[in-house]
Amino acid sequence: MKPTITAFRNSPDRGKGLARDMRVRWALEEVGQAYDVRLQTFEELKQPAHRRLQPFGQIPTYEEDGLTVFESGAIVLHIAQQHPGLLPAEDPARIRAISWMFAALNTVEPPIFERSIAAIVERKEVWYAQRAALLDERVRTKLVELSQYLGDSAWLEEDFSAGDLLMITVLLRLQGSGMVEVHSNLAAFVARGVARPAYQRAFAAQRAVFEQSTSGQDAQSPK
Amino acid sequence: MKPTITAFRNSPDRGKGLARDMRVRWALEEVGQAYDVRLQTFEELKQPAHRRLQPFGQIPTYEEDGLTVFESGAIVLHIAQQHPGLLPAEDPARIRAISWMFAALNTVEPPIFERSIAAIVERKEVWYAQRAALLDERVRTKLVELSQYLGDSAWLEEDFSAGDLLMITVLLRLQGSGMVEVHSNLAAFVARGVARPAYQRAFAAQRAVFEQSTSGQDAQSPK
Repeated sequence: MKPTITAFRNSPDRGKGLARDMRVRWALEEVGQAYDVRLQTFEELKQPAHRRLQPFGQIPTYEEDGLTVFESGAIVLHIAQQHPGLLPAEDPARIRAISWMFAALNTVEPPIFERSIAAIVERKEVWYAQRAALLDERVRTKLVELSQYLGDSAWLEEDFSAGDLLMITVLLRLQGSGMVEVHSNLAAFVARGVARPAYQRAFAAQRAVFEQSTSGQDAQSPK
Repeated sequence: MKPTITAFRNSPDRGKGLARDMRVRWALEEVGQAYDVRLQTFEELKQPAHRRLQPFGQIPTYEEDGLTVFESGAIVLHIAQQHPGLLPAEDPARIRAISWMFAALNTVEPPIFERSIAAIVERKEVWYAQRAALLDERVRTKLVELSQYLGDSAWLEEDFSAGDLLMITVLLRLQGSGMVEVHSNLAAFVARGVARPAYQRAFAAQRAVFEQSTSGQDAQSPK
C-alpha cells in the first residue's frame, strides 16, 4: 500500500521546494517508494482532523496502513528504517548518520529558520537591520563549522545518507543569500545533492503542485 | 564498558540542569546504564580534539567502544535503541514516540531556545521589549497546541518515552517564565517527569559538577 503524505496546497515558497514536504518526497524518491499526496489549505491544517495527525498543524505527515508519523525528521528516519539506501546498515556508521540528521534539524536549521522568519515578521521594524546582522552572524558560524568538518569529502560521512539529505534541505533555505557560496565545498555539497535524480523528481513533483495552483487561480480570476 | 559523555565544566545555567547533557544523563538513568563524564571548558570545546567528536563544538557527546554519537537527540535515540524502557518495542507506537522526539527538538525547542538567547544577547537593545513580546507569542502558540494534544493524559502517548523525556527538558527551559503553568496539564506533565527517580539522579549528578566547580573557585580565590 502506498503511503500518503500531506503538503501545502499553496506553499508560501511558491514552488521553490523549501517546504518540509520536500525532505520526505526526496527520501521516498531515493528509496523508490511511490506515494500519494493530500494537499492541505492553511485553513484545513488548523482543523481537528489534521491536528489528530499533526498536533502543531504543520505539514508534512505520513500515513500508511495503521501508522501515522509526523515531523519531517521522524518521517525521513522511518523511511530510512523501512528501506535500504538512506542509512548505513549498522553502527557505528548508522548512528553517525543519525547524528547528522539531528544536527541538521536541531543545530543548523534553527538559526537559519530564525533568519527566514525575521525577514518576514520583522522586516519593517526599525531594528531589523541591526538584528539581521546578529542572525547572519549566527548562521555564518554554523556554516564555517560545517565547512571545516566537510573538508573535501563528497558527503558528511562515507556515503550519502539521510543526514546529508536533511542538511542539504536546510542549507537550501539560504538560497539567494550568498552565504553558502562563501564556502566552495558547501556549495558543491548542496549542488551534489540537488543533482541527484531523486531530488530532481521530488522537486518536479512539488513544483507541479505550484503550477497547478497557479493555473487554478488564473482560471478562477481570468485576466 | 561504560560509555563516556561530555558536559560543561562550568555550565552557564549554574547547576539548574538546563544544559543538554541532562537529557542524556536522564536517559542513561532511566535504562540503568552507568556512565563516565568528561568535563570540558569552553576553551576545550573549541579545540580540534573535541571538534572531531562534535563538529559544532557543543556538548554532549557520547563515546563507547569504537562508536561516537553527537547531538543530544541522536544520543537519546541511541540509548533507547540499545536498552528497553525509552521506546515502545514496535511500530506504530515506536515511530509515534520518535515523532515526539523530533517535535520536541525541531518544533518546540527552537522558539523556546530563541527566547532564551534573546534574553541574553538582546536584553540591552532598544527593541528588546517589543521583540520579547513576539517571541513569547510564538512560544505560547506551541504550548497551547501541546496542551490541547496532551489533554488529561499522563504522557504524550500511552507510556513514558524518550519523546516525553526530550519534551520535558525543553519545557524546563521556560522555568520562571510562568508560561508552562498557564496550562495546568502541561505543568503536571513536567512535574511528573521531574519526579521520576531517574530524573532526580541525573539532576543530582549534574548539580554535583556545579557544586564542585563552585567550591573549586572558592579554593582558588579564597575570601
